[in-house]
Amino acid sequence: MNTHVDSGLLSPVRAGTPVESAVEDGAWLQAMLDAEAALARAQARIGTLPGPAAEAITRSARVERFDVREIALASRETANPVVGLVAALTRAVAAEEPTAAEYVHRGSTSQDIFDTGAMLVAQRALRIIRDDLDRTAAALAELAVRHRGTVMAGRTLALQAVPTTFGLKAAGWRQLVLDAEQRITQVLDGGLPVSLGGAAGTLAGYVEYARLDGAESTDPGQYLDRLVAAFASETGLAGPVLPWHTLRTPMADLAAALAFTAGALGKIAIDVQSLTRTEVAEVAEPFVAGRGSSSAMPHKRNPVLATLIRSAALQVPALASALTQCMLSEDERSGGAWHAEWQLLRECLRLTGGAAHTAVELAEGLEVRPEQMLANLGLTGSQIVSERIVAVLAPKLGKVVAKRILGEASALAQRTGRPLAEVLTGTPELTGLVGDEELTALCDPTAYTGLAGVLVDRAVSRCPED
Amino acid sequence: MNTHVDSGLLSPVRAGTPVESAVEDGAWLQAMLDAEAALARAQARIGTLPGPAAEAITRSARVERFDVREIALASRETANPVVGLVAALTRAVAAEEPTAAEYVHRGSTSQDIFDTGAMLVAQRALRIIRDDLDRTAAALAELAVRHRGTVMAGRTLALQAVPTTFGLKAAGWRQLVLDAEQRITQVLDGGLPVSLGGAAGTLAGYVEYARLDGAESTDPGQYLDRLVAAFASETGLAGPVLPWHTLRTPMADLAAALAFTAGALGKIAIDVQSLTRTEVAEVAEPFVAGRGSSSAMPHKRNPVLATLIRSAALQVPALASALTQCMLSEDERSGGAWHAEWQLLRECLRLTGGAAHTAVELAEGLEVRPEQMLANLGLTGSQIVSERIVAVLAPKLGKVVAKRILGEASALAQRTGRPLAEVLTGTPELTGLVGDEELTALCDPTAYTGLAGVLVDRAVSRCPED
Amino acid sequence: MNTHVDSGLLSPVRAGTPVESAVEDGAWLQAMLDAEAALARAQARIGTLPGPAAEAITRSARVERFDVREIALASRETANPVVGLVAALTRAVAAEEPTAAEYVHRGSTSQDIFDTGAMLVAQRALRIIRDDLDRTAAALAELAVRHRGTVMAGRTLALQAVPTTFGLKAAGWRQLVLDAEQRITQVLDGGLPVSLGGAAGTLAGYVEYARLDGAESTDPGQYLDRLVAAFASETGLAGPVLPWHTLRTPMADLAAALAFTAGALGKIAIDVQSLTRTEVAEVAEPFVAGRGSSSAMPHKRNPVLATLIRSAALQVPALASALTQCMLSEDERSGGAWHAEWQLLRECLRLTGGAAHTAVELAEGLEVRPEQMLANLGLTGSQIVSERIVAVLAPKLGKVVAKRILGEASALAQRTGRPLAEVLTGTPELTGLVGDEELTALCDPTAYTGLAGVLVDRAVSRCPED
Amino acid sequence: MNTHVDSGLLSPVRAGTPVESAVEDGAWLQAMLDAEAALARAQARIGTLPGPAAEAITRSARVERFDVREIALASRETANPVVGLVAALTRAVAAEEPTAAEYVHRGSTSQDIFDTGAMLVAQRALRIIRDDLDRTAAALAELAVRHRGTVMAGRTLALQAVPTTFGLKAAGWRQLVLDAEQRITQVLDGGLPVSLGGAAGTLAGYVEYARLDGAESTDPGQYLDRLVAAFASETGLAGPVLPWHTLRTPMADLAAALAFTAGALGKIAIDVQSLTRTEVAEVAEPFVAGRGSSSAMPHKRNPVLATLIRSAALQVPALASALTQCMLSEDERSGGAWHAEWQLLRECLRLTGGAAHTAVELAEGLEVRPEQMLANLGLTGSQIVSERIVAVLAPKLGKVVAKRILGEASALAQRTGRPLAEVLTGTPELTGLVGDEELTALCDPTAYTGLAGVLVDRAVSRCPED
Repeated sequence: MNTHVDSGLLSPVRAGTPVESAVEDGAWLQAMLDAEAALARAQARIGTLPGPAAEAITRSARVERFDVREIALASRETANPVVGLVAALTRAVAAEEPTAAEYVHRGSTSQDIFDTGAMLVAQRALRIIRDDLDRTAAALAELAVRHRGTVMAGRTLALQAVPTTFGLKAAGWRQLVLDAEQRITQVLDGGLPVSLGGAAGTLAGYVEYARLDGAESTDPGQYLDRLVAAFASETGLAGPVLPWHTLRTPMADLAAALAFTAGALGKIAIDVQSLTRTEVAEVAEPFVAGRGSSSAMPHKRNPVLATLIRSAALQVPALASALTQCMLSEDERSGGAWHAEWQLLRECLRLTGGAAHTAVELAEGLEVRPEQMLANLGLTGSQIVSERIVAVLAPKLGKVVAKRILGEASALAQRTGRPLAEVLTGTPELTGLVGDEELTALCDPTAYTGLAGVLVDRAVSRCPED
Repeated sequence: MNTHVDSGLLSPVRAGTPVESAVEDGAWLQAMLDAEAALARAQARIGTLPGPAAEAITRSARVERFDVREIALASRETANPVVGLVAALTRAVAAEEPTAAEYVHRGSTSQDIFDTGAMLVAQRALRIIRDDLDRTAAALAELAVRHRGTVMAGRTLALQAVPTTFGLKAAGWRQLVLDAEQRITQVLDGGLPVSLGGAAGTLAGYVEYARLDGAESTDPGQYLDRLVAAFASETGLAGPVLPWHTLRTPMADLAAALAFTAGALGKIAIDVQSLTRTEVAEVAEPFVAGRGSSSAMPHKRNPVLATLIRSAALQVPALASALTQCMLSEDERSGGAWHAEWQLLRECLRLTGGAAHTAVELAEGLEVRPEQMLANLGLTGSQIVSERIVAVLAPKLGKVVAKRILGEASALAQRTGRPLAEVLTGTPELTGLVGDEELTALCDPTAYTGLAGVLVDRAVSRCPED
Repeated sequence: MNTHVDSGLLSPVRAGTPVESAVEDGAWLQAMLDAEAALARAQARIGTLPGPAAEAITRSARVERFDVREIALASRETANPVVGLVAALTRAVAAEEPTAAEYVHRGSTSQDIFDTGAMLVAQRALRIIRDDLDRTAAALAELAVRHRGTVMAGRTLALQAVPTTFGLKAAGWRQLVLDAEQRITQVLDGGLPVSLGGAAGTLAGYVEYARLDGAESTDPGQYLDRLVAAFASETGLAGPVLPWHTLRTPMADLAAALAFTAGALGKIAIDVQSLTRTEVAEVAEPFVAGRGSSSAMPHKRNPVLATLIRSAALQVPALASALTQCMLSEDERSGGAWHAEWQLLRECLRLTGGAAHTAVELAEGLEVRPEQMLANLGLTGSQIVSERIVAVLAPKLGKVVAKRILGEASALAQRTGRPLAEVLTGTPELTGLVGDEELTALCDPTAYTGLAGVLVDRAVSRCPED
Repeated sequence: MNTHVDSGLLSPVRAGTPVESAVEDGAWLQAMLDAEAALARAQARIGTLPGPAAEAITRSARVERFDVREIALASRETANPVVGLVAALTRAVAAEEPTAAEYVHRGSTSQDIFDTGAMLVAQRALRIIRDDLDRTAAALAELAVRHRGTVMAGRTLALQAVPTTFGLKAAGWRQLVLDAEQRITQVLDGGLPVSLGGAAGTLAGYVEYARLDGAESTDPGQYLDRLVAAFASETGLAGPVLPWHTLRTPMADLAAALAFTAGALGKIAIDVQSLTRTEVAEVAEPFVAGRGSSSAMPHKRNPVLATLIRSAALQVPALASALTQCMLSEDERSGGAWHAEWQLLRECLRLTGGAAHTAVELAEGLEVRPEQMLANLGLTGSQIVSERIVAVLAPKLGKVVAKRILGEASALAQRTGRPLAEVLTGTPELTGLVGDEELTALCDPTAYTGLAGVLVDRAVSRCPED
């Protein structure tokens, strides 16, 4: 039995999704190899490393040539996989171009390679996530527009409160998705940085080799700027102000953006679940043959997409907090806080990415049942508009009295099952205050949706980039 | 015994600091009263509430007139303090101006008032925190510049690695503080929003009262824009696109910015602790008579400021994750997720604010001991520059061989306590490769600080606003 | 404005509950005073401190005599409140009995006093919590027995699945409460320990003073055992094997038991909310005039007890994880990890205690509506027993075919709204396989509750102590 | 590229350790197959399923016959892997013994199989962890005994405080490891339970099939007891009082025990790091060629074992809190809270197990340097025993005065670098109070270790089972 497979068996939310392959071990190893190759090319570009050596290193830096498991096992001896990777890469380059082998990892340190690789992985994963958020938002905008006037019960603290519209609900979901997209975009645009510090963040090793390789005359500031710019350019990442071995801003920013995104999607999921309940039945997940089936109950069509999304949303904030906690990285490199980040980051990317991918399908296929929404609105016999009736009566009776009367009438309506309008008609204190016709109109839930329509208009006009 | 005092006894990091009083119960209650008053004034401004009533409400909305404990106890009956507060405020207004009492909380809902109050509290606290971060960053910039050339051991995984400078370390700390300040500023500038949604986020109650109060002809969109703008203006908060009762972006953003800030300050604290250790003794906290004394040991001068800051940094990320988790707020108002946020938010503000306040004192008064740094640099007899010697030998011997020789020489130096230079001089494989003079020069740790100086220059030129 | 009040305004779940006053600052200070007094009496008991001095210290160790805020503010200078407390207590004792003042805190260290005080506070709070769990369990047992045969829909992944009984649900809730009680009891019985280690856990200070006070002849082992036993006896706490200044087992155990308890109560709360939903309406919280009222909607009777409990359950696990993380306490006393524990522990105790207190009221007063349960059972037209029909058909058709037929029939029933029995009767493949009468009987949800009754019997026979 | 490999590249703490293969996907799938097979055998044992069918199912239930990835991918459709697994197992059985296929998963539900499988996996992993804790504790006991008299500086808040012994430190580490072992053992002995509830926890499906298979005459209580006992016996797990689909006690208990264990091991790791620091150098990790090497610095011998352990300890408490939070599982099966547990549980087991395995090596091979401990003890020129001198002077001068004098003398000693004894000799207030010889004796740090020796004796006499 292959003892090192993670097929997604325990994490269906991301099994088989694009983000899963973007962050698996092979992708991570390739990203570290990309970092090594880009570093050599960057050094070549500024003239401190022979161009052919950089080319040879780049040619060898293909994950297919390496045994991931072997490097993983070796990492126990050095607490990180880079030491073993450098040895293997050096061997691979030497086999092809012996003179180039000397230039592998020149002046560098494990953390520069690992963290640059991690940023490459994160960048790739975030782009996938952003695209999925974009599609989700688009689908939700459609729902919001289509159901701009679909009245349903607004619910607070588990109870029907006052009417709202499904359009407003969908617009709110989209708002959160756009907020998430904005935060992901900000991390991407703000620039996930290369890591370039050398053993303790002074770049001394890089400088020393540059000096030996004949670039000693360079002004240090120029050398720094040129090396950082070249490495950034070769990787497609940003150049940081300072080496960040123990200044973990990029990790904390990723943690925050991913926790936010998972939370945003989780909100949609729990709302879908709430509306899917058998007794509510106002929405259903898209119908796909076999989807949502139970091992025991043939009648069930479980809301599996919402379930998967929620399973991610329940994990990511805690994982992200552990990642943020790793900001407490002592000295010039932490013995443990750095190492704790890796799996946490992958899992945050993977769960959030899986949730985003799942959300696309949920948003694009959600079945909405306006007729059931209307039916549920009628369940309380107009108690759902009691707030409105208080407002109408307040000028005549005072707010306190109006509220008391409605409270008593609602309680009576609940006890007896009689419609609120009927109870109110029989309330002596109201005699002559409100006509029957007006009362009937006031009691129509569909006529009490406030500014829901305008709010939808406002919200859907927000662009994804805002 | 007063059973409801939180004097900071269990949280010295914030006891007596400005942020503590900015977030205590009285401040929170005042903020909710401010929200009620601003709402009335906003409604008056757009013509749906009599001006004198708004003035009377504003006059009554002073926390001194209310019994905080009574309102807190009453909140158990309704799960939030606003219901009781509205009752008390209505009574207070009625006592002064009976006709105005009807206009208290007009069209509103508990969450609008509570959340607007929370944003006011957060805004005030964040400004205090930002100022303290600003002062901390300024003090760290001074340290960085002053110690641009102060060489010290860079340490990784607990061991001396290669030299660095204290200037670079201080510049790195400042970098994190500026990053934190930027994130706090972004939350402040992005706009902590008023909450304005009414019972279920449609503003139906507001609209209804506006209609009854004769403003019915207004176009809904105009009414919305004017009311939101007026409320925002009266509170000094921003106007949101949508009501956010269960779209908890502002809370998640606060959580992220505060966890980041606590983490950033925590990094400084653990570094100070690491450098303060008796055996390291490279820095000391500012000397204040009586400060840092122990109940048992008269010789101790404990690094209490770093201790306090770290105590906060160990708490905030976990608290913030629970706050972020509350994004999973079901329906139009959650029965529990909303309520869980309150104390978490206060504690995040209070701990982070206390840590920031403490950091000012730490940064402004930190005692740095260059001579001890130099002494420690000598502890390993030049092993700390082994990386450099490898670089010099690599072109002559190949990197692998050079690294092996240095590894063996270092091990021998460690075993015997002899200086590395001496061991290397006696190494046959090196005979004739490096002159004694060159070797001595190479072995000088103070000559191997790479680009530390340039990095400091780059970093301190970053403005707080960047 | 008093700037250091925590009246519970932001934490209604515990406002005014017994646990709140058991853990507030004054109680904590008293507990530390109790620790100082008990230490003096213990030393007197074994003959290393004059009895009258111990009595004088005990007389002075009353919280009323101290200014909590002053001690809290002073704690910023030493990072803990004990240094200031010892100074104040010494003054108080000196004022009454000058010769006794020398004996205050004799040989001791801040952490011994603080941690012993914390264990006293925890012990008192846990007992309150245990009692409330006990009452909750008793009320739930009654519900379980009373509703042993009350059939309702079992729900999985938000959908009606197969029938269950309310008795079984209540029995399950009780099971969790008993599990929680058991974990609390285990912590109490296992023995919350005194802290007795002196400055670095060797008790050297205690020994030195004992030697000076003429008890030097004592065998060290005997001295240790006698002092620990005497201190344990005087406090009512347990004697630990080793000083635990940085062996934080007691804190981690408290964290685990409290997180468990909050989680257990949270499960009940979310179930109550699920069943309270307007569309489900199978239970309601106890009716109390004014309880659950909304600031806007007079008809609402919000499930506030469940809301409060859930608000606690959403916080405690995260707080408890930060407390557990503090096990990473370096050296002989941590500079920060120890200090981070204090507020976390109080908040875990306070929230869990508030939730337990609230749960008593919820469990004792829960209104159960069997008729509504029955009505909801009928909503799916017998689809809820589709599992059973598959079982009956499987021997005749094979399980796979039977499941397919029921799946199709259920889908048709859902689409058309026809009862499942009717659809099945018209299914050609079933002709002759099941008689109409048998089918009608099979379709009765109340006849398909499996072993629910027996499970209730088994569960309620479990004693609280098990 | 194989896109679903988790080779441990990002988690070296467990790469290649026994626990890793005990919890990987194949092991988990086998455990679920074991659950299916055991269920069939249990039903056969009580006579409700043909024995040969149970045997056929058992024969087919071998993970080698299944495609883990295919089942993982299919799990996205149903939100759990059991539905797909049952289909595949049914096919596999049918291929071998067509009549037996009907009896696969008879009466069962996904959660029964998954959770029973999870408990099997957890049981196997916990046993591995327990064994490693046992070995770690044994090695630490040896260290404690061997170094019973090895004096070293006790350190509090980063500073040397008073002397202690390395024996006492090792005894404290062992204490924590035994505490962890005890908590793991308690979970194992308390009985990880089978899951046996059927679709909604009433076992109705099991009963129905039993009835159809001719066992209907059985008394329900007897049937329940017999089925539970048989399933428990066939799996080697315990029989629960109630089905626990949403009563998540076993998960919360696992979370607590694993977080505790990770925290306990983390404490050892950070202490080892603290003592390994170049400037302290009191311990070193076991020397293994190549171990701890750096990609850049040949002289380094990084404390990689402590680093790996700490990396786990920084993750597990947060993961465990998310697992505990899943106690908030609504209804009879949660749509999301259940699904969130799986990967969290595996990761907690894997990280903790990896840390325990690593701890064995650390404890068995730790190099202790008594001579360096002694040298460090001398660093402060006897200030480390200032507490003792206060004690001696207190009866003569009063404690307050004595403490003040020692405080001033210590400050002077620190400023001037003179030994404390010398400073004290020159202090006028002490003239004639303490003889020079006595002072010299008092200033010997090795003579002030209090009860360290006795505490070691007490601690090492604690058995692992206590």
